[in-house]
Amino acid sequence: MASVVAKTSRRQPKTRLRGARGARDAREPRVRLDVDERRAQLVELGLTHFGERAYDDVSIDAIADAAGISKGLLYHYFPTKRAYYAATVKEAASRLVASTDTDDSAPPLERLHAGLDAYLGYVKAHAKAYATLMRSGVGVDPEIARIVDETRATFIDRLTSGFGQGLMPALDSPIARLALRGWVGFAEAASLGWVESIAEGLPAPSQREVRELLASTLMEIVRSTAASLLPSTPT
Amino acid sequence: MASVVAKTSRRQPKTRLRGARGARDAREPRVRLDVDERRAQLVELGLTHFGERAYDDVSIDAIADAAGISKGLLYHYFPTKRAYYAATVKEAASRLVASTDTDDSAPPLERLHAGLDAYLGYVKAHAKAYATLMRSGVGVDPEIARIVDETRATFIDRLTSGFGQGLMPALDSPIARLALRGWVGFAEAASLGWVESIAEGLPAPSQREVRELLASTLMEIVRSTAASLLPSTPT
Repeated sequence: MASVVAKTSRRQPKTRLRGARGARDAREPRVRLDVDERRAQLVELGLTHFGERAYDDVSIDAIADAAGISKGLLYHYFPTKRAYYAATVKEAASRLVASTDTDDSAPPLERLHAGLDAYLGYVKAHAKAYATLMRSGVGVDPEIARIVDETRATFIDRLTSGFGQGLMPALDSPIARLALRGWVGFAEAASLGWVESIAEGLPAPSQREVRELLASTLMEIVRSTAASLLPSTPT
Repeated sequence: MASVVAKTSRRQPKTRLRGARGARDAREPRVRLDVDERRAQLVELGLTHFGERAYDDVSIDAIADAAGISKGLLYHYFPTKRAYYAATVKEAASRLVASTDTDDSAPPLERLHAGLDAYLGYVKAHAKAYATLMRSGVGVDPEIARIVDETRATFIDRLTSGFGQGLMPALDSPIARLALRGWVGFAEAASLGWVESIAEGLPAPSQREVRELLASTLMEIVRSTAASLLPSTPT
């Protein structure tokens, strides 16, 4: 965050610098706060706009209008639409990770259910944004691919360090890591299918049913991977 | 295929039409064959080139060179690099679907194992192309997204019509479709993780272990979804 602020405050648009030359040093802390505030405001607007429609349908003009700034100033904070989108994806991923980080004093299964409920609630509330992220060109932008990969890794770490510990005897084994990575793919594909069914008005399971599907599949994967890792099992 | 031929033969490059005006009707069947042959040759070359490196690293110049034609003529058959890539993805998907279509007189579990082995063998043999397809912007190109979705749907149909029938009592229920869709996501994520580990020289499970992971997870999903659909289960 600090580097972003430093970078943007060095590259202020000329309109903001006019008439402020002499007072620049004295005013810098104030300008920095403005830059942070403006960025936060724009990311918030981006979350709403990218959250409600597909990437291609998001209008930078409409966002600049809503923020009461010029399109040029918006492009000062985010040089491209892709960069702006990446900033909103990063913020959305942080919020998703935070909202699914459940009380670690609760029993593992309760934590899993609470985490999955938070995940599914988030996906349902941001169905269009989720579909855009999962379907449209995650990998085209390395920055967005990195955010998605890091979010997946966070979920897998949480599973291996918290909930899964004790259930799976050799979590650092290649097959166990692969099984958990597969389960994250399961959760993403099922979540996407679920919100798409809802969006298309097709019969869709309840959130509780989807949560049960994800939880029971994970338990089964943990159980069968653990069993396959026992030395007595023929390989 | 017929419409493709008709389209391309109507849009022949001028070099081919020169001097052939009077004889055009008589020569049409021969020209059509040439168009088909050329397309097939280019798709074959595309499979090799897109199969060995990431999309951005594929050089259209190198492919035109290898085919012994001009870049302009290549763009006559495929107006853009994306369109060319889409044609090779379509062909690759057909081959994948065909190679995993196992002997339907064999017992269901044997068919599943044979199909999964064919799938994993294909993914391993075309690791770079698979990673490109799964990671880089499937949804950016609606044509490619459609091919990937259709391939997934074919696999799900195969599971519901052949192997899964009898095992899962209500395959047309929303939760069962979602479970199978989730499993396809599981298989894709685990396959991708597997070939990436191999490519990075990390410890990776054997193909047999990955196949067992995919098969046992599917069996478990089928079993637990079937159990949750029984009327006696509280919902």
